[in-house]
Amino acid sequence: MSRELPLGVFDSGLGGLTVVRAIRATCPNESILYLGDTARVPYGTRSAETVIKYAIGCARLLVSRGVKAIVVACNTVSAVALDALRVELDIPVLGVIQPGARAAVAAAKGGTVGVLATAGTVASGAYPRAVAALSTRAEVIGQAAPLLVPLVEEGWLEGEVPRLAVRRYVEPVLARGAKAIVLGCTHYPLLYDVIASEAAAIAGAPVPVVDSAHATAEDVRAFLRDRDFAATRSGTGSLELLVTDLPASFATVASRFLGHEVEDVALVDL
Amino acid sequence: MSRELPLGVFDSGLGGLTVVRAIRATCPNESILYLGDTARVPYGTRSAETVIKYAIGCARLLVSRGVKAIVVACNTVSAVALDALRVELDIPVLGVIQPGARAAVAAAKGGTVGVLATAGTVASGAYPRAVAALSTRAEVIGQAAPLLVPLVEEGWLEGEVPRLAVRRYVEPVLARGAKAIVLGCTHYPLLYDVIASEAAAIAGAPVPVVDSAHATAEDVRAFLRDRDFAATRSGTGSLELLVTDLPASFATVASRFLGHEVEDVALVDL
Repeated sequence: MSRELPLGVFDSGLGGLTVVRAIRATCPNESILYLGDTARVPYGTRSAETVIKYAIGCARLLVSRGVKAIVVACNTVSAVALDALRVELDIPVLGVIQPGARAAVAAAKGGTVGVLATAGTVASGAYPRAVAALSTRAEVIGQAAPLLVPLVEEGWLEGEVPRLAVRRYVEPVLARGAKAIVLGCTHYPLLYDVIASEAAAIAGAPVPVVDSAHATAEDVRAFLRDRDFAATRSGTGSLELLVTDLPASFATVASRFLGHEVEDVALVDL
Repeated sequence: MSRELPLGVFDSGLGGLTVVRAIRATCPNESILYLGDTARVPYGTRSAETVIKYAIGCARLLVSRGVKAIVVACNTVSAVALDALRVELDIPVLGVIQPGARAAVAAAKGGTVGVLATAGTVASGAYPRAVAALSTRAEVIGQAAPLLVPLVEEGWLEGEVPRLAVRRYVEPVLARGAKAIVLGCTHYPLLYDVIASEAAAIAGAPVPVVDSAHATAEDVRAFLRDRDFAATRSGTGSLELLVTDLPASFATVASRFLGHEVEDVALVDL
């Protein structure tokens, strides 16, 4: 398989573009083929069985287009479907939870880690398992935050409603002693400022808020280097975007996410 | 076909249970087979093509179980897929938009009708068409309210966040002169009190808020009477609930919706 092939990245919707942005900043010469399953977003409120079924469909589509590895840019899928994907596919599969957990343990300095995530990710116990593998001391407090994905998907990122919604979810986590908060859903970085400022207001001092996109991009770089599988082109890799529904509105929001104009978003059927 | 067969009712999730409750109050001896497509909720943010595909899948499943008519208890599906369903199926198909529009025109007394609905329903223009068929005078103002379905699905029905979210959507509708507001999504009746009180606070006087579930149940009764197709059993008809994901959590919320304990919710695959 050619090392010049793109990385396949997928998410339930547009949240995974935060991971795409981080990978492009960290490994600019890698090409990326992105799939947002916008016809079936959100995944975080669904059962593990359903998420596994959807994730395998997404991954197979990317593989059929030719990718050298899969990056699961979705915490819910990473939490419940990573093993199933690794069994199903013949190429490497990287997730977002292990890197996010590692960054969170470091930020909490051995103290309790708070996880904001979808109901599916919290129910899976994936963060407590990932943290336990890194530190026998650190406790994990999971908090489902189901309203944050719709807020981000609607672009309602400032003002009273996101502030109060964030407060409802952050307050119990801090009350139980969290020393750092990891954003356990790739949509949440869009609410980073609100989450950081509410956490600081509640705690009376800054609380580290960890965005797993950066840690994931570092993992991707290390993986490509260790396997000697990085692209060798000079300059910038290509970026191709696929969605399962509403390509035009995805292009608008993707431009905002990625910080540059996105012209072509292709519609695919799953 | 037997008149004792159940009515088939479907929605993207649990919102359609507001229609079930109204039908059971209006036609208590009818049996109902309900399908909530919880694996693919919400529909209101998706394209018309995707909604039509999902709706035909839901309707075919109900028909395969044996139903005498289909009630589409979802505004988004009623807005974009009613014609496709009528072509596809050999049994009668009733929607929620026509009855809702009729009740809204009556409540607005010929004045402007405000419609709160999903993005898909607003984009379809279904309410303006339905109102135009009833009154050449009445104007229609559509307002997409994408955060209300997630609020209802999470059960966050009182306090500042639902109040502010409702205010964001109701204010522009009233500013443009709406004399009544129709709840153009079967989830919204769960927020009826918040919507009515915010509308009254903004307008400085009560504003009629129309829940299309009751009007739809009246339509169902009239249809069954006119076609001589009503069930003849004495006593109460049966209620069977099917979902495509997470039957246990659906049972909990359905109990709250219907006002009595719901024990069996069956999982089906679409």
